[in-house]
Amino acid sequence: MTRLGENSWGKSSVRLSKIHRGEAADDFTDLTVQVLLSGEVQAAYVDGDNARVLPTDTMRNTVYALAQDHLGHDLEDFGRVLVEHFLSKEGVHEARISMEQRRWERAGDHGFVGGSSERRLASVESSGDGISYRSGIDGLLVLKTTGSAFEGFPKDEYTTLPEAEDRLLSTTIFAQWGYTTLPVDTTETWETIRSLLLNRFFSAASQSVQHQGWLMGRAVLEQVPEIDQIEFRLPNQHHLGFHLERFGLEDAGVVFQPVSEPYGDIRFTVRR
Amino acid sequence: MTRLGENSWGKSSVRLSKIHRGEAADDFTDLTVQVLLSGEVQAAYVDGDNARVLPTDTMRNTVYALAQDHLGHDLEDFGRVLVEHFLSKEGVHEARISMEQRRWERAGDHGFVGGSSERRLASVESSGDGISYRSGIDGLLVLKTTGSAFEGFPKDEYTTLPEAEDRLLSTTIFAQWGYTTLPVDTTETWETIRSLLLNRFFSAASQSVQHQGWLMGRAVLEQVPEIDQIEFRLPNQHHLGFHLERFGLEDAGVVFQPVSEPYGDIRFTVRR
Amino acid sequence: MTRLGENSWGKSSVRLSKIHRGEAADDFTDLTVQVLLSGEVQAAYVDGDNARVLPTDTMRNTVYALAQDHLGHDLEDFGRVLVEHFLSKEGVHEARISMEQRRWERAGDHGFVGGSSERRLASVESSGDGISYRSGIDGLLVLKTTGSAFEGFPKDEYTTLPEAEDRLLSTTIFAQWGYTTLPVDTTETWETIRSLLLNRFFSAASQSVQHQGWLMGRAVLEQVPEIDQIEFRLPNQHHLGFHLERFGLEDAGVVFQPVSEPYGDIRFTVRR
Amino acid sequence: MTRLGENSWGKSSVRLSKIHRGEAADDFTDLTVQVLLSGEVQAAYVDGDNARVLPTDTMRNTVYALAQDHLGHDLEDFGRVLVEHFLSKEGVHEARISMEQRRWERAGDHGFVGGSSERRLASVESSGDGISYRSGIDGLLVLKTTGSAFEGFPKDEYTTLPEAEDRLLSTTIFAQWGYTTLPVDTTETWETIRSLLLNRFFSAASQSVQHQGWLMGRAVLEQVPEIDQIEFRLPNQHHLGFHLERFGLEDAGVVFQPVSEPYGDIRFTVRR
Repeated sequence: MTRLGENSWGKSSVRLSKIHRGEAADDFTDLTVQVLLSGEVQAAYVDGDNARVLPTDTMRNTVYALAQDHLGHDLEDFGRVLVEHFLSKEGVHEARISMEQRRWERAGDHGFVGGSSERRLASVESSGDGISYRSGIDGLLVLKTTGSAFEGFPKDEYTTLPEAEDRLLSTTIFAQWGYTTLPVDTTETWETIRSLLLNRFFSAASQSVQHQGWLMGRAVLEQVPEIDQIEFRLPNQHHLGFHLERFGLEDAGVVFQPVSEPYGDIRFTVRR
Repeated sequence: MTRLGENSWGKSSVRLSKIHRGEAADDFTDLTVQVLLSGEVQAAYVDGDNARVLPTDTMRNTVYALAQDHLGHDLEDFGRVLVEHFLSKEGVHEARISMEQRRWERAGDHGFVGGSSERRLASVESSGDGISYRSGIDGLLVLKTTGSAFEGFPKDEYTTLPEAEDRLLSTTIFAQWGYTTLPVDTTETWETIRSLLLNRFFSAASQSVQHQGWLMGRAVLEQVPEIDQIEFRLPNQHHLGFHLERFGLEDAGVVFQPVSEPYGDIRFTVRR
Repeated sequence: MTRLGENSWGKSSVRLSKIHRGEAADDFTDLTVQVLLSGEVQAAYVDGDNARVLPTDTMRNTVYALAQDHLGHDLEDFGRVLVEHFLSKEGVHEARISMEQRRWERAGDHGFVGGSSERRLASVESSGDGISYRSGIDGLLVLKTTGSAFEGFPKDEYTTLPEAEDRLLSTTIFAQWGYTTLPVDTTETWETIRSLLLNRFFSAASQSVQHQGWLMGRAVLEQVPEIDQIEFRLPNQHHLGFHLERFGLEDAGVVFQPVSEPYGDIRFTVRR
Repeated sequence: MTRLGENSWGKSSVRLSKIHRGEAADDFTDLTVQVLLSGEVQAAYVDGDNARVLPTDTMRNTVYALAQDHLGHDLEDFGRVLVEHFLSKEGVHEARISMEQRRWERAGDHGFVGGSSERRLASVESSGDGISYRSGIDGLLVLKTTGSAFEGFPKDEYTTLPEAEDRLLSTTIFAQWGYTTLPVDTTETWETIRSLLLNRFFSAASQSVQHQGWLMGRAVLEQVPEIDQIEFRLPNQHHLGFHLERFGLEDAGVVFQPVSEPYGDIRFTVRR
């Protein structure tokens, strides 16, 4: 006897861009949207009955159709409109919209420079009673040439890492938070959080990635009352020394070999 | 007042290969390993005290050092050895090892052809009492030219998709399962599950991706007693018709435009 | 005074798939096509006059439209049809079609398993007088556990590599050749060349990647009379030893760290 | 009878970073370097004799060793030092060093924000008599919401593209130029060229990608006397309209579907 467990269906990688025409200058939004629905669709699995399976093609069309009137700067608003639309469909019990926004820097009234790995994240979810929001940042690559140590760690038979009083530190910031109360201007709040993260990364000395991240998360919770927890992933993107003394050189400690594999994988949540 | 919530630290993207020397022929294993630990490390975050922070560099070294004696064909065994090793460290309360194995096809006694996107997955996790295993398959790209329909779905103002009595279907199979009892030979069990998935995809006609996936999952649960649930992600990788009648041609329905963005995103679990 | 130099325009990354319906079984072709044209289009650059700029959108449509009747197993035939079509346009003096075919392994009458990194390459080019063909293979990942040495190389102040009497060798074969006479069945010729490359990689012992590649290229020229030169790129994809003796272990030389960066970059042509 | 044709060997994807320690603030350089040599190495191919095959591992070591003293802001200087070093080896007749520099924006005295797709390119090449330099830019993603048309193009039986009086235009700029005389400060010259490219993209209205590119290239040749030709690749990265009138909406022309495949592929050189 087999039965259907948790399930969802949706459309991923829906790429959407929009020009916001202004009097003097245009603005521009560039998103990748994901729609995921859950509901009473057991018959689709077990009997091949599609009567309640809203096609993922229709989901895609809906995203573009509703974007014209409803997509502004606050992604959370657009997400809410989509969630409410999909929840109104027969047999749909839960809807989640997740969005990634690419960064475009303004260059004149109608021009933009893109290409950053940084993403603004927003997701909106509801199963009918209330609605919940999670927002975040991803792909924000940072590096500092001093102000980072790693000392006093445990040693065993497989330890080869030397203690480091002052090292180069590089990470790609992923941070995500829920809102207890949705701010009036989620874009302004997002910019505040981004600034706090960068400020604490660059200005606060740390004893480890964990310590650095704690200082970043604590600053956010202290300054932004609408959130009560923030989750981090901070990969330690190693720049290895190259041991130049092997070649009869004095090693000044300024030449490095960056490696993409492997990386230190640090994950944690800071709560109120 | 802020405090530390869930947290883990580890090493990701540890690439490891091993030759298994044989009398006549060699065998070859190629893995990417991830180590993630959790424990009493609040002091590292809050006070910058690293006394219990086993360096991720040491984790990497450990993976290579233990691979020489302990990495065989059953990845779950190697994962268990690593989990037990890391759990023995002071302050470590939980350890998880996740592995992805690349596929290499034998070509003679000492040669192999690789390059497949397919991966065998295995993860092993323990917090001291007992140990749990999750195994799986990812990146298994399949396509069939007939035996797939999508009809009878709901229509609304944003529907443009036509009904399809018989369509091309392509997906990249991700499936993952837990073991209630670990099989004696996990490699053999994995091969059995892989064969069942392929057989049901190619031989069973379906009314939707959901229906296709259900038939695949049900077959696995019926044939493999050691597992009681299997989780799927089956992206619908669309090959769109190109509407050749626009050019004054009769459209034979055999020419397609494959698109990578967007894709239908179907996720579900089949349980006993 | 500025003037226009070499120039071309076209459409790249045109993804195209086709079902070849058969009595009992179907066949399936999956291509990425690139169109590049050159011609008398100076006015488009200098004056903004588009009268001779065939839109790249039209090129894409043309690829799909002509695929229905003209795309069979021999990619070179389809390329020729496209080249001739585009050369007939006013002001077009040169046309080049390049194709990459993905590999799908048959699984039953209507099913296929894909996901290989291997590609069959074909490009066709003409500027009106005659037509030239270049075909090839790319992404063919191979590895052997023995039968490869690297000794007797020059040493200087920056040398740290030890001599290797027998090492693991892995490369991703790229090979490309022109035809002096187009074979009747280019698909069969392509399969013959692929087999010769694999056979010489796996069966012939080598003193270096260069030596290995020479043996592969020589075999192809000896067996395939229609080609008189073959060009190779053979990256040396290193699997580094991990120096287990640092951990008090005897190093059996079977555990490796594969690295993707950097790689040895070996390029050469073998001619008659 | 077979013989060796053109050939080269080297090391690719050598990742290198360097801190330039300053009194108050540090600077930071992040490169990927490629070394390619050619020379009298026929014996390595034909006879397996490695006496003149400088190992690619040694090339990598050399890049790091020479970076400590010789890598400053002008990449062309570092390239020249490497080229001269490798040319001094027995049997090496030609050396080429190619570099890609990642962009890091300063954030305080010791901090940097990265993640841009933009690259500064520099390559240096010599076969003993003189030395030649090619520099460039890649990955510079730009978009404008107005000031771009595409009209008056030829129509045929496969044309579906409508004329566009004013459209969104997006491209990723690749431009590369040789120096007739190496500027005293190649970094300053590079910044000048980058500014000219951006200025002409954003400020000059165009009738096509070709016309836009011509205006960009002409501006560079007019302002920078040290170069006499500049080569471009300007992919047309389409943002397609979504035809909202299908859903009973008035289409305001502001909602788009960006597509990565296929893309218009425009390549040309502007010369003095």
